[in-house]
Amino acid sequence: MPLRELQYPTEPYSKVNRLKDRADYALETIHQIVNSCPMLHVSFQAPDSPFPAVLPMIGQMGSFSRPSADLGDVLDLYLHGYVSSRIMNTARSTDSQEEGVPMTIAASHLDGLVLALTPNSHSYNYRSAILFGHATLVTDPAEKLYAMELITESIVPHRWAHSRVPPNAAEMQSTSVLRVRISTGSAKIRTGEPHDERGDLEDEALLERVWTGVVPVYTVRGEPVAGGYNRVGEVPGYLEGWRGEVNREAEEYAREAVQREVVAKKVDG
Amino acid sequence: MPLRELQYPTEPYSKVNRLKDRADYALETIHQIVNSCPMLHVSFQAPDSPFPAVLPMIGQMGSFSRPSADLGDVLDLYLHGYVSSRIMNTARSTDSQEEGVPMTIAASHLDGLVLALTPNSHSYNYRSAILFGHATLVTDPAEKLYAMELITESIVPHRWAHSRVPPNAAEMQSTSVLRVRISTGSAKIRTGEPHDERGDLEDEALLERVWTGVVPVYTVRGEPVAGGYNRVGEVPGYLEGWRGEVNREAEEYAREAVQREVVAKKVDG
Repeated sequence: MPLRELQYPTEPYSKVNRLKDRADYALETIHQIVNSCPMLHVSFQAPDSPFPAVLPMIGQMGSFSRPSADLGDVLDLYLHGYVSSRIMNTARSTDSQEEGVPMTIAASHLDGLVLALTPNSHSYNYRSAILFGHATLVTDPAEKLYAMELITESIVPHRWAHSRVPPNAAEMQSTSVLRVRISTGSAKIRTGEPHDERGDLEDEALLERVWTGVVPVYTVRGEPVAGGYNRVGEVPGYLEGWRGEVNREAEEYAREAVQREVVAKKVDG
Repeated sequence: MPLRELQYPTEPYSKVNRLKDRADYALETIHQIVNSCPMLHVSFQAPDSPFPAVLPMIGQMGSFSRPSADLGDVLDLYLHGYVSSRIMNTARSTDSQEEGVPMTIAASHLDGLVLALTPNSHSYNYRSAILFGHATLVTDPAEKLYAMELITESIVPHRWAHSRVPPNAAEMQSTSVLRVRISTGSAKIRTGEPHDERGDLEDEALLERVWTGVVPVYTVRGEPVAGGYNRVGEVPGYLEGWRGEVNREAEEYAREAVQREVVAKKVDG
């Protein structure tokens, strides 16, 4: 039986209208971008505000009903409720308790500064994912615990088991977790070298004068700094091993993205 | 005459309700976070959508009427309209042409992974700024040119003058720039070491077992990769000088943030 890649439906509000060739609706692509993003931007319309609310939050996609699900499967987004008091109030003040608060979640990675002959052709290499869904408060303690471990592990793998767990009653009480049921989503990815207009490419003097290429951009997890009451002499192996791996992968992706060409046919919209 | 620091007014929708001690309403603090953020997240309510729209965009704050204004002055936010076709349509489809489209702009920097004794006390060191304002299309060619240069210079200083400028008629035509008049904004900053609850701090066995501290996180601009039609042998000095400086500053900030303590008194809400 041939494996078929799951795709999100393209709704009017989720469809990529510009540079369509950069668009990707595959669940695996989108979920990968979200789960590798340490800070998500969560937006929703607060009932009492003229502006949408935007909160930076920590989140991770997973499946409580099927923890073995992989990135290409249908997943929920779990958000750590630490800073989400406005969301809680919105959920309470609207009749959307059952279906949840409509929200949009953005995850973005900057991978490179693309320097062309003219500012107008400058660009970024990037990976951007947007999810649309409805958020409700997680009330089942087992599901809440699943989400807390999922999110902690996404920050530093193996940290959960190497810290004091499980959370006590007060911690379970004070921590709120949101589950976002995803309606749809999309990703937009740019890789490759600079592209310039024919007119500039035919300008010999310009070509001799302006350096063109890509400055790879990536995030580094630096040398750990022990806290004031730390008593463990050596930085743990699980932490150092992960740092080396994630730092290497981040730099490699940014550098390889320069070669991996996604031809971006310009499309109006 | 004593210099007085300008602060944004705290509206109900902009007030920081949780961990108030991390809040900062100073224009200079907020503008600094925004202008050092290479990717902003712009949110607005599209009329035809059940969800807010969120777009990653490139932006920069400045003052066209007084280009010499510094970061602590009243500034406008200029957004490069490259991916903003939905905003354009929203502006057209609403009666908000004069006052503009209400939007919320988020700028976030992740500065460190704060690893405590228990997952519940884990945190991030971060700088987050939110701006609320109304966006209109920039129509004055001189102001548009000012914004294009401002934004290009924010990506790589001195790049504007070292590329083919000014933009030709077609480029001025095809590039749209949004000016966001800021109503208010806020920043939230976390620095310092881990904090744990008394109960865990009194657990000797736990203190002996769990490493606690901060993993500094920062963005690196890596070794430039020349493009296929580049003819300039050496990477320009303005680019390499800036890379060294910005990389050094980024790492320094993340490391020094571990020491610079902002006591975060927990506040409900």
